[in-house]
Amino acid sequence: MKVVITGGAGFLGRRLAAKLLERGALTGPDGTARNIDEIVLVDLAPATGFDDARIRPVTSDIADPSVLSRVIDAETRTVFHLAAVVSAQAEADFDLGMRVNVDATRLLLDTCRTVGHRPRVVFTSSVAVYGGTLPVVVRDDTAVNPQSSYGVQKAIGELLVSDYSRKGFIDGRVLRLPTVSVRPGKPNKAASAFASGIIREPLHGEESVCPVAPDTRVWLLSPRRAIECLVQGHEVPAEALERGRAVNLPGVSVSAGEMVTALQQIAGKAVAARVRWEIDPAIERIVGSWPGAWDTARANALGFTGDKDFHSIVRAYIEDDRGRGVRA
Amino acid sequence: MKVVITGGAGFLGRRLAAKLLERGALTGPDGTARNIDEIVLVDLAPATGFDDARIRPVTSDIADPSVLSRVIDAETRTVFHLAAVVSAQAEADFDLGMRVNVDATRLLLDTCRTVGHRPRVVFTSSVAVYGGTLPVVVRDDTAVNPQSSYGVQKAIGELLVSDYSRKGFIDGRVLRLPTVSVRPGKPNKAASAFASGIIREPLHGEESVCPVAPDTRVWLLSPRRAIECLVQGHEVPAEALERGRAVNLPGVSVSAGEMVTALQQIAGKAVAARVRWEIDPAIERIVGSWPGAWDTARANALGFTGDKDFHSIVRAYIEDDRGRGVRA
Repeated sequence: MKVVITGGAGFLGRRLAAKLLERGALTGPDGTARNIDEIVLVDLAPATGFDDARIRPVTSDIADPSVLSRVIDAETRTVFHLAAVVSAQAEADFDLGMRVNVDATRLLLDTCRTVGHRPRVVFTSSVAVYGGTLPVVVRDDTAVNPQSSYGVQKAIGELLVSDYSRKGFIDGRVLRLPTVSVRPGKPNKAASAFASGIIREPLHGEESVCPVAPDTRVWLLSPRRAIECLVQGHEVPAEALERGRAVNLPGVSVSAGEMVTALQQIAGKAVAARVRWEIDPAIERIVGSWPGAWDTARANALGFTGDKDFHSIVRAYIEDDRGRGVRA
Repeated sequence: MKVVITGGAGFLGRRLAAKLLERGALTGPDGTARNIDEIVLVDLAPATGFDDARIRPVTSDIADPSVLSRVIDAETRTVFHLAAVVSAQAEADFDLGMRVNVDATRLLLDTCRTVGHRPRVVFTSSVAVYGGTLPVVVRDDTAVNPQSSYGVQKAIGELLVSDYSRKGFIDGRVLRLPTVSVRPGKPNKAASAFASGIIREPLHGEESVCPVAPDTRVWLLSPRRAIECLVQGHEVPAEALERGRAVNLPGVSVSAGEMVTALQQIAGKAVAARVRWEIDPAIERIVGSWPGAWDTARANALGFTGDKDFHSIVRAYIEDDRGRGVRA
């Protein structure tokens, strides 16, 4: 079988590809394991660094209608749709966000529908679909109420994935990802970029600006666990998703202040002192609209596993990335 | 000022136009009343029967990008976006539903954005955005969970209207309409068409088939009140909608069985006996997923008024429509 990963040259896309190469197989539509013959990494940027004949990088824009129809074909049983214009960027460039987050998602679903064999589509959504006055406990079926264009666009993607699944066009799964932290490399244009930056930059000897108040609470998942959750999101049988296609993934709830305290406990006072607090109201407005925690009972029952605590997230980053000198 | 009504040749569109001609004015963006100089009725069908120089019928497809850019211009302060592919039709023809209910809605919002002066856009949504396991009390902020493509498409329209409003592109209002009953004329392709048919046809001496069980509960609003609510939805100041752009309009909750009982009490046993019960599972699945009632506290506080009871709805139909022999 063939797997397509959009955003395949991105940080999560590349790690997911590496994990799939290692596994060698995914569950097929009949419930049995199928060998992965090809992993297509579609991205605007070239997906470099793989030395495996199963990897096929396609450097193209998924919003271009001809691209997806070339890469999704009769052999494609699985699509991980990770490509997106991130939160702060979608807020700054409304049309770009609509083009990639809405139009390309729909194009992808329509292409999957055209091949006719109901591919599994794992769609990554976000904490950003929530907002406004939130209940004390946020569950998978809590009302979405996005307060950013990114959140609106992801919520539209969720509705489409659900309806295309109900119609039998695809077998879709919506995974609402916590903020992934600690991401290696350079900061991206997500409003939540600080949630990696305030740990990563100080550990690399650089200053980092935290644009939200110390008591701002975020909901985090390590890259390692995020990749495991993406695979699990694929493996969950469709019958288990009858109550709803969207699953709120596990996370740890931590405030920006607690993050820096953890950094200090693990790496010392001098490292933690490299965080400078400078509120950016635009960032704080977006991040502050997201839930800082949610109920994970359903995710747990479906076999998803998160991190133990924020300390273990920081230690995982040091082991997986800083130790290998991964910066990009 | 100029008003545009999409679906302007439809039953609600024509009545709304008549009501606006009678009022002569609507509140402008500065909060003061402005005279209506022109009402553009855009519809696939010709909007006939008006004898007023202010009415301009435009017989065109709103999903055609050139159409809306011709009718929405610098003088357009208000758009009532009523045009839609209805529920059973959108379920049967998925692509048509997406084209009209999603693409044309977005095109309309983008056209309003282009004119640059933030027109008021009244968008009609529906009970169909709800579904699944509903709480005992459905409120404006209850999670949408559409179980039909029509509901999904309306939910996407709601998200877009909210985000375009938040971004300052338009001043949007989402009115979630109950099933409008008793509609005059011929049955349309809505799954809820029976909610008019089982009253209208027997009153005209014809048999009518009820495709849902007698205990199926529907949430109804008379045409008369629906038009008043559309106008009120326009008149509500934007500040009153800060908690959310979507308002669940008032209605009366009645079962199909109770509707026929009311008909019998008003028009006699022989008339009510013209209703034949014959369950259509496809219709029952769609209608059964909708809430049979919702909490109207917010709508009431915003000045919307519904009907007293179902008996008064039947009597209003007899007064407004049957008496005038209105059948189309």
